[in-house]
Amino acid sequence: MSYPENFQGFAVVEDHKNWLKPEKVVYPAKNFNSRDVDIEIEACGVCGSDVHCANGNWGNMKLPLVVGHEIIGKVVRLGDECDTGLKLGDRVGVGAQVSSCLDCSRCSSDNEQYCPKFVTTYSQPYFEDGYVSQGGYASHVRVHEHFVLPIPEALETKNAAPLLCGGATVFSPLKRNGCGPGQKVGIVGIGGIGHMGILLAKAMGAEVYAISRSHAKEEAATELGADHYIATEDEGWETKYFDTLDSIVLCGNSLTGIDFNKLPKILKVNGKLTSISVPAQHESLKLHPMQLLGYNITQSALASRAELIEMLNLVADNNIKLWVETLPISQENIGQAFERMESGDVRFRFTFTDFDKQFGEFKAKN
Amino acid sequence: MSYPENFQGFAVVEDHKNWLKPEKVVYPAKNFNSRDVDIEIEACGVCGSDVHCANGNWGNMKLPLVVGHEIIGKVVRLGDECDTGLKLGDRVGVGAQVSSCLDCSRCSSDNEQYCPKFVTTYSQPYFEDGYVSQGGYASHVRVHEHFVLPIPEALETKNAAPLLCGGATVFSPLKRNGCGPGQKVGIVGIGGIGHMGILLAKAMGAEVYAISRSHAKEEAATELGADHYIATEDEGWETKYFDTLDSIVLCGNSLTGIDFNKLPKILKVNGKLTSISVPAQHESLKLHPMQLLGYNITQSALASRAELIEMLNLVADNNIKLWVETLPISQENIGQAFERMESGDVRFRFTFTDFDKQFGEFKAKN
Repeated sequence: MSYPENFQGFAVVEDHKNWLKPEKVVYPAKNFNSRDVDIEIEACGVCGSDVHCANGNWGNMKLPLVVGHEIIGKVVRLGDECDTGLKLGDRVGVGAQVSSCLDCSRCSSDNEQYCPKFVTTYSQPYFEDGYVSQGGYASHVRVHEHFVLPIPEALETKNAAPLLCGGATVFSPLKRNGCGPGQKVGIVGIGGIGHMGILLAKAMGAEVYAISRSHAKEEAATELGADHYIATEDEGWETKYFDTLDSIVLCGNSLTGIDFNKLPKILKVNGKLTSISVPAQHESLKLHPMQLLGYNITQSALASRAELIEMLNLVADNNIKLWVETLPISQENIGQAFERMESGDVRFRFTFTDFDKQFGEFKAKN
Repeated sequence: MSYPENFQGFAVVEDHKNWLKPEKVVYPAKNFNSRDVDIEIEACGVCGSDVHCANGNWGNMKLPLVVGHEIIGKVVRLGDECDTGLKLGDRVGVGAQVSSCLDCSRCSSDNEQYCPKFVTTYSQPYFEDGYVSQGGYASHVRVHEHFVLPIPEALETKNAAPLLCGGATVFSPLKRNGCGPGQKVGIVGIGGIGHMGILLAKAMGAEVYAISRSHAKEEAATELGADHYIATEDEGWETKYFDTLDSIVLCGNSLTGIDFNKLPKILKVNGKLTSISVPAQHESLKLHPMQLLGYNITQSALASRAELIEMLNLVADNNIKLWVETLPISQENIGQAFERMESGDVRFRFTFTDFDKQFGEFKAKN
């Protein structure tokens, strides 16, 4: 099988201000290690992180920068020591993490997303050689097999992609907070991740409370399966639902965006308020400590391989249908998707498709 | 049995600046309800809260103010509808809470310390009639039986008193965080409450890490039973103990007093950092949300009746010896105890005794 040592992708070049006009660039792949997998990319979801990284919200990054970390593709090369059972041609996925030490206490306890040697799928140097990772708006990606997920056959590619970062990020805290039958779970922010949160929490068996500023998302939330809807622009909601929920996952705003005098009131004692959004660098959370009385706050990140696999199977087994709009990948469509993501004009997630049309020529030559 | 409708106690009068010279005052008892218990006080522990309330740290309070909420005494009157099994003459205790609605979802789930109608033992108006509660540096206290605890015979009075607020406050989060065999638990701040934290966590079966700024408390912590000692003035402790503890209880400083770039590192993923100190009114916690990555913070308050009873039995059954200094109650000794509490000059807790010498004459006349 022919195999490229260079990949091609759409990158933000020269300056973050060019983020809406990513250009096609060719860049060297990272060194191939004995447990690495090369994947020919077929689709990639558009995550809020892609927008924040491309436009510089999360600080200046090394350019050119190829974003994208909800990658679906097929295996085209396997390192000699791969042993997770992958075969050439398998349809696989890669989320927002591509490396960790795989040796420390965190990696050994299904917490590799909290390993100090965590490497994100794009924009971060690998610890071993400083190679800066590049993402999935591209022809290929090369990743350690631990971070390559088998995709159940029943899952459509366009639906599988957004699960790999967005879905996983809301699934992990749901799972860790005990989401299931008898639990009452709040999902704040009914957007790309929030809509997956409702679908997943329902499939896990919980009673789901969709929470949004206005009533604009009420119909969608109900259609997604939410049992209750709370609009925080209504008067007295925090009293009506006092002491009701076992846990809340914040899918829209970060912790700095909520009213700590209201939202925690609807949690039961010892309930959990988990934020999953990565806030902009300048954001600061300011609280009086007593505003934390009787409940927990935490910031969660991504999911472990074990959780990713469990979530993909849950979605496949329950035939859960995400709300996804597909767009053929191109400079124009990346720009359009980014602009529409920023203005909330998508129900509820984009997946880029048709990678062969953009990268077929490059692949044929390499 | 003769029964007073007025009580006598040592109160801060006229101005918080007089806090070191409390004066003996007579004040009306609250209305006697059918589930109330009158207690003739024999001893009272000195809690950090007493200092903060007396000196005005927690804001201006209604004066005269009788503090004290680690009360031991004997039952001298029982309301007609009392049904928790108390008898006249029983030795009983009262902690820092004297009322709640006893009807809401929180009161019904052993979380009455988080009931919105919570009333503290002193300085707070009852919801029903606005009577402002008065504490235990006094001849008597009148309390709903739910907040009156039977004291196991094996417990010495001087040891039982500090458990009723300080001990309970550290016991509840230990219990709720799963402190027990196989758990590694940190106690930050080796003072009055922290020393009880070490004793209780050891009795619960955990491996205990005592954490303090310097090595000054190391010998005491070891004598109390701590398995490990961390001095945060030492270089590199947060790396040495990375990912080690299941939970930490902050017994000294509030959340605003810790280094969020270091202390959380020694928690395992999903570990809990619980603060139990009530911070001064002006304190503000300022964080970047990502400083909460992978662990929980919360503020805990007191303990439920069920937890108080469990803790008292644990201490009695394990013959746990607190480090307590007794002082006969008097104006001079209250001032001295307050000053020594403020400067940390006590190992580790005071209990006032000899209440009969101060209030015997008043009781004989009433």
